[in-house]
Amino acid sequence: MNWKEEILEMVKKTKISSYTVSNLSTEKKNTFLDKLASNLSEYTDRIIEENQKDIKKAEKQGYTCAFIDRLTLGEKRIDKMIKAVKKVKELPDPVGKVIWSTVRPNGLKIERVRTPIGVIGIIYESRPDVTIEASILCIKSGNCVILKGGKEAINSNKILVEIMKKSLQESDIPSDAVNLLTKGGRKSVKFILTLYEYIDLIIPRGGTSLIKTVVEHSYIPVIKHYAGVCHTYVDKDADIQLALKVVLNAKVQRPATCNATETLLVHQEIAEKFLPKMADLFRKNGVEMRVCERTKKLIPDGKDATEEDWSTEYLDLIISIKIVNSIEEAISHINKYGTQHSEAIITENKNAAEKFFREVDAAALYHNASTRFTDGGEFGLGAEIGISTDKIHARGPMGLEELTTYKYLIYGNGQIRE
Amino acid sequence: MNWKEEILEMVKKTKISSYTVSNLSTEKKNTFLDKLASNLSEYTDRIIEENQKDIKKAEKQGYTCAFIDRLTLGEKRIDKMIKAVKKVKELPDPVGKVIWSTVRPNGLKIERVRTPIGVIGIIYESRPDVTIEASILCIKSGNCVILKGGKEAINSNKILVEIMKKSLQESDIPSDAVNLLTKGGRKSVKFILTLYEYIDLIIPRGGTSLIKTVVEHSYIPVIKHYAGVCHTYVDKDADIQLALKVVLNAKVQRPATCNATETLLVHQEIAEKFLPKMADLFRKNGVEMRVCERTKKLIPDGKDATEEDWSTEYLDLIISIKIVNSIEEAISHINKYGTQHSEAIITENKNAAEKFFREVDAAALYHNASTRFTDGGEFGLGAEIGISTDKIHARGPMGLEELTTYKYLIYGNGQIRE
Repeated sequence: MNWKEEILEMVKKTKISSYTVSNLSTEKKNTFLDKLASNLSEYTDRIIEENQKDIKKAEKQGYTCAFIDRLTLGEKRIDKMIKAVKKVKELPDPVGKVIWSTVRPNGLKIERVRTPIGVIGIIYESRPDVTIEASILCIKSGNCVILKGGKEAINSNKILVEIMKKSLQESDIPSDAVNLLTKGGRKSVKFILTLYEYIDLIIPRGGTSLIKTVVEHSYIPVIKHYAGVCHTYVDKDADIQLALKVVLNAKVQRPATCNATETLLVHQEIAEKFLPKMADLFRKNGVEMRVCERTKKLIPDGKDATEEDWSTEYLDLIISIKIVNSIEEAISHINKYGTQHSEAIITENKNAAEKFFREVDAAALYHNASTRFTDGGEFGLGAEIGISTDKIHARGPMGLEELTTYKYLIYGNGQIRE
Repeated sequence: MNWKEEILEMVKKTKISSYTVSNLSTEKKNTFLDKLASNLSEYTDRIIEENQKDIKKAEKQGYTCAFIDRLTLGEKRIDKMIKAVKKVKELPDPVGKVIWSTVRPNGLKIERVRTPIGVIGIIYESRPDVTIEASILCIKSGNCVILKGGKEAINSNKILVEIMKKSLQESDIPSDAVNLLTKGGRKSVKFILTLYEYIDLIIPRGGTSLIKTVVEHSYIPVIKHYAGVCHTYVDKDADIQLALKVVLNAKVQRPATCNATETLLVHQEIAEKFLPKMADLFRKNGVEMRVCERTKKLIPDGKDATEEDWSTEYLDLIISIKIVNSIEEAISHINKYGTQHSEAIITENKNAAEKFFREVDAAALYHNASTRFTDGGEFGLGAEIGISTDKIHARGPMGLEELTTYKYLIYGNGQIRE
């Protein structure tokens, strides 16, 4: 068999397993999660051993420290994985929930019931913790999963998938519920993206170029988790103290996350009072400022922002700042440069907030709060597989419910259509 | 400007209009529908005149009668359009509805609110009634629409879009809310499928080859409306009288629709009692039977079914018939050959029905009723833009709610993330 045939066979097996996995009881899925937690604990040394192989290779090949950090599975990170497994066990099972029902005049009873999607393909980079975190959410929601991780993490991923398969077997669940793509190199990604008969959904997790490749080649529906170029707009009617506190948090509390604010927009009528104080706070916190011409007059030590800055996700202690003439200009700027992720307005004016909520096109809109809250846990949705920047199927934090679809079940007693 | 530049400009204008259209009041959208109904009535003669140009050309080019029938807009069909416009006016507006809300321990109030998707591209064949029916559902749900119909209907589509634009203007709505692609020929389809910055969703309506082309080339999310290879399974515990009535209806009441049954599966233990009676009814109703070897013994005048028959959507008075050993075999057959559309079981055994409901992977599952009911109107969902055979975003009848997405609106008073 060549690699295409091998992959096809594996994908078909996963599809067949999905008919069983979609009907597992919550208890059985939770048994798997229990076994997985204890096996991850039992085999911690083996995981670290295999992970070391990947790390050594990456070091030889001269990867950056940040890259190697993401690749590394130490005891602490494995503990975090085990905690994630236990947390997902506690989440309610979304499968089987009746989400709508009706009885028609002809007596037909119709129910819309949540069901698993089927087979989900996760395409990601060299973060082996994703291997466990994505898989447990898929299984808990009754889906099977095909994993394609970065080649630099191959040994780590292999041992983690082996441990998952062992835990599946011990719980009497088909071990094909989780499969890892190891053959075919980079070509294997484009190949699986054509297998729409067997894979129901693709979730790419990683940088923009990975996601673009997936979107441009996939015949299978894709839910994108693009960059977060998030904005906070300080309106003319903002409470300045509140604005200072919220904007600082949105930028510095954890700048490497997709929901951190990257651009600050300030209404011209409040700029003089607000921006010098804000700039002081940014300086104290080591934030580099890239500013428009008008802002430059108030923050002379700001660097000149280029056109590119307005669409850049820094993921770092850098912020772009622009003074706008009106709320309308702020909204157009966001709709033009934003990535439909998280956008905030700071204002005491209820009408302005309503206008912003109505007219900005994004997954999460904030009034007087930090953009940093866009997160399944913070929203009370439980763990998330990511933040969708798509509008189709799932928008914003994507948790267990968003990993399901529905069926219509129709109960009759001989109804025919006239 | 070349055709690509022209299309790009048109698509960008549509996107800009979508920010206005997504915030229109229900009243304003209904005013448009009123104006459209009266303009369609006022300009009936013009529509027929333009449609005649298309028909004459198609006749010259030797298209089939069935094709020309689908292309034709007579007074009756225009009346049907007007009725559809009035019906959509009566449907509730899905936009702005709060579908979930919570207050977090930190005081953040979070609402999930239905919003329009944005710009929807409809790619279809030479049925000019789709031009109106798809557009009115998109506008009522706050979306803008880009239409690409078959070239054979170009004159009909142009006049219909002109009338829609006039009606939009008379209602003070940007006329770019509806645009028709006329340049670039077949290449224009592939081109618009790459414009993911401006178009949010593609809905292809037409034959399998059209849908395949769209799926294989689109960078934009696609919701497919594939063929309906629907099955009715007569279980060993079926009520034979009920089975005869329901199966006949599912096949003959309107065979050209996607929810008509194409394959009849019969449990071996009931085949002898049931199939000869069923065959009599089929013969009386002019239904051609294509049968498996075992069925042949009970229906000697049945044609031999080929492997291809099991995956064929006849859309005609033809049915394929297979005897199965068990409900398990029936379920595997459906999961293998079906198109995840509408599937029925006829049985008095509740456990069998439950098993069928659990294990068959399809949009609509029926117990003791005709597959013909899969329809937005019959489900009480109002008018539909089609029946989705996808699992992502919308499954089964796709009405106004399925033409929306959602936003999270978060109300704070200075919350920051710790």
